[in-house]
Amino acid sequence: MSTPAPPEVPLSPGMERLAVLLGTWSGRGHGEYPTIDPFEYDETVGFSHVGKPFVAYSQRTADPGSGRPLHAEVGYLRVARGSWAELVVAHPTGIVELSEGTFDGPWMRLRSRVVAGTGTAKEVTAIERDIFVEGDVLEYSVRMAAVGVPLTHHLRARLERVR
Amino acid sequence: MSTPAPPEVPLSPGMERLAVLLGTWSGRGHGEYPTIDPFEYDETVGFSHVGKPFVAYSQRTADPGSGRPLHAEVGYLRVARGSWAELVVAHPTGIVELSEGTFDGPWMRLRSRVVAGTGTAKEVTAIERDIFVEGDVLEYSVRMAAVGVPLTHHLRARLERVR
Repeated sequence: MSTPAPPEVPLSPGMERLAVLLGTWSGRGHGEYPTIDPFEYDETVGFSHVGKPFVAYSQRTADPGSGRPLHAEVGYLRVARGSWAELVVAHPTGIVELSEGTFDGPWMRLRSRVVAGTGTAKEVTAIERDIFVEGDVLEYSVRMAAVGVPLTHHLRARLERVR
Repeated sequence: MSTPAPPEVPLSPGMERLAVLLGTWSGRGHGEYPTIDPFEYDETVGFSHVGKPFVAYSQRTADPGSGRPLHAEVGYLRVARGSWAELVVAHPTGIVELSEGTFDGPWMRLRSRVVAGTGTAKEVTAIERDIFVEGDVLEYSVRMAAVGVPLTHHLRARLERVR
């Protein structure tokens, strides 16, 4: 359903800072949390745009051994006031996430302002994402407060641009 | 970035009721709201799954004359207790939506429990979606409370399954 912009469509004015993210990224990540066994994952991330004032974000991970789908998430990034980033994300676990933060140099540091879950979702109360992007390398770490555990390291991955 | 399930992957147990949505839908819609001029739109909607307990939802609309992209949204549907539907959606306008409601016979009636916006988003306080699906026809209407306007009819469309 995604509709990548033809190359001739420029980024919407004010969104230029997000240009470094555009494309498809792939790599390996490591997850851990006090309530689960540590795990490795293969990840593909995409950022695309259609010339409007947002960048579409999608992500999916798979078990490195079996290829079995693990997590996925979708959403949008926006930029306000030049170096302030806004992220809205829907998680298939029944969670919505609204985060904001600085995008300054190679670092985007997003902090959740709203996290809410459906009736069947596990309780998640805070998500923090630090994203580093430079050239064809994207690294991120995620901290999460969930199921009674305070904000704790959860995910870390190193991705490379594949197109 | 979407990964439609191969046909041999069955829906996750409990999600069978969502089977009627799977596929790609296309058609024409009409939008209106007290604060804007009425408008027509062409819409493509997709529901897909990977065998996990959710169905991925994506949507995009375009101006019928120029093909210019208008709205888009992405998210996930879940089912709880057989006939209770949960929807989480990210909107490129900087909005997250968490809605729940009945999926009884051909009607899904979703009512927002949480709507939140980033700093640059217009204020939206409630969204109601009535979705009718039968065979290869999907019709929906959306009511919205936004920018000081109480819950008011906003969108209506009739889509047909195209694959």
